[in-house]
Amino acid sequence: MSHTLVVGLDIGGTSTRAAALNLSGERLGAGRAGGGNPTSHGAERAAAELLTALREALADIDPTRVAAGTIGLAGAARLLADPAGRAAFDRAWHDAGLRCPYTVYGDALVAYASGTAAADGTVLIAGTGAITARVRDLRLDRIADGHGWLLGDAGSGFWLGRAAVRRLLADLDAGHTLGPLTTAVLAELTGSTDIAARPRDTVDATVQAVTRRPPVELARLAPLVSTAAAEGEPVATALIAEAAAHLTESVSRIRPADAVTPVVLGGGLLTGDTPLATAVRAEVSRNWPQAPLRIAGDGAVAAAWLAARELPEVTDPAALHARLFPTTP
Amino acid sequence: MSHTLVVGLDIGGTSTRAAALNLSGERLGAGRAGGGNPTSHGAERAAAELLTALREALADIDPTRVAAGTIGLAGAARLLADPAGRAAFDRAWHDAGLRCPYTVYGDALVAYASGTAAADGTVLIAGTGAITARVRDLRLDRIADGHGWLLGDAGSGFWLGRAAVRRLLADLDAGHTLGPLTTAVLAELTGSTDIAARPRDTVDATVQAVTRRPPVELARLAPLVSTAAAEGEPVATALIAEAAAHLTESVSRIRPADAVTPVVLGGGLLTGDTPLATAVRAEVSRNWPQAPLRIAGDGAVAAAWLAARELPEVTDPAALHARLFPTTP
Repeated sequence: MSHTLVVGLDIGGTSTRAAALNLSGERLGAGRAGGGNPTSHGAERAAAELLTALREALADIDPTRVAAGTIGLAGAARLLADPAGRAAFDRAWHDAGLRCPYTVYGDALVAYASGTAAADGTVLIAGTGAITARVRDLRLDRIADGHGWLLGDAGSGFWLGRAAVRRLLADLDAGHTLGPLTTAVLAELTGSTDIAARPRDTVDATVQAVTRRPPVELARLAPLVSTAAAEGEPVATALIAEAAAHLTESVSRIRPADAVTPVVLGGGLLTGDTPLATAVRAEVSRNWPQAPLRIAGDGAVAAAWLAARELPEVTDPAALHARLFPTTP
Repeated sequence: MSHTLVVGLDIGGTSTRAAALNLSGERLGAGRAGGGNPTSHGAERAAAELLTALREALADIDPTRVAAGTIGLAGAARLLADPAGRAAFDRAWHDAGLRCPYTVYGDALVAYASGTAAADGTVLIAGTGAITARVRDLRLDRIADGHGWLLGDAGSGFWLGRAAVRRLLADLDAGHTLGPLTTAVLAELTGSTDIAARPRDTVDATVQAVTRRPPVELARLAPLVSTAAAEGEPVATALIAEAAAHLTESVSRIRPADAVTPVVLGGGLLTGDTPLATAVRAEVSRNWPQAPLRIAGDGAVAAAWLAARELPEVTDPAALHARLFPTTP
């Protein structure tokens, strides 16, 4: 058996994860650190989190045995275009004791690779934001949405949270009795389900509760929509259906109608057992009946697999992928 | 003829206007100053603009002849609840030489009164933002929308501008040829109509051009939609129709289906000869066929009229209104 190892990193906005594997697919180390997205946190901080996660993953490993590494992160293109950011990552890599080169990929490609070994396909990610990408030869080829909360992220957690608040405000404007979802949103935002004698005061309190915080935090209301929809609440169910339609429309921008390649679903809203995941699976199957549907798995492991498949001794990358992600159908 | 005078002020985000009238409806003075919305600029600055506009309007007038005054401004309730803000306004009023009391109303009521003398009705305002209000006994009774760009302002200039950028981004994602509207938006935002060899670079440049500025400045793109719609461009025409539907939906939250009271249209997008104004007039007439439609006029004059009608010597406020707004049908 080869003594060669590979490492992979998945750098996200809220956490950084590292994995070290041998070429038989055994996981020999794992590490975790804080959010390190260089777009939001700066390359220096991202590199510091990278180093923390790497050191933890390599704690019981001789780092000179590592022959290849891959880093997946949002805004990869921007990091690569920035010499200072690239230098910070180079230093962290070296400080972890690694002597091999590394490759940087977009987080969407790593999510895709965590769901399938197929060279061509589509990945759809919905968490706080939403983005979809077409993959060709295991490279990101074309992208749709991912435009951020102000202009896009249609069907994302942000989108669901904002839509729920809008429904609450519309009900308050019209003097309608609140339903289960809008009541839950009001309670979450104002700490109470009471409506003021002058309902406009409750409207103002709701708007202020939202605008006091960064807009993107509207995504924290998305679980209220999921919970209500799971209980069959009609307003929440309609919002989930609308979100699923938005996400599917984004996919249709870049995926031909007759495509039969896999579709990988990633992000917190699509990998769990949520109403949105169910609705999106149904929509995707309706639009692309022959597409195999896959669920994204461990991104750090997928990044390590992307590194391994470049090594000459890895002759069957698909078999290694199957060992790493055994639950993937 | 009475020597009694009244003054009115209309304090908006971009300008403050003052008008002085006698009770025959003659305009004896007018003043103008910078934006003075106390919500966005602070009460001290709003009071300073108020004083500038008042002094100009009263330049040729003995201020002790003024028997009543009215100030219309956005966020009136917040000003009245703030003792320091109220004191700043009191000082400005006194420094202008005025010895009569004054009343503060929301800007929506002043816009309403600039379109009709009827005690009961509805006002719909669409400019950068959008708000609608039900008026009863010439007081704001209920309000719909006005929730700000993050959560509301559906059908506003902000809404139109953002929708136009979204169409551009969707076309770039899908690789569609740009139409007249999306081409104009791209040129306005990036300074060029060229699409990069890697179209995602043009997507990123577009998103960055928007996010470099305050979100509300998306409203500056609304005239591109109006111009394109006036030329029959189908994407722009569809956006105008959608905006008109949103505005009408906001009205329906607070206006009974069988109401026959006037509907006053205000704000830059509805008082001019714009495609949105035409579409909204059609939608309102379809939903409330018996409602007289009115266009908002000079807010400072309307504020002065609101002051005059409280005076015992004004026995026919409707006749005075007709003299002040002779073009109102």
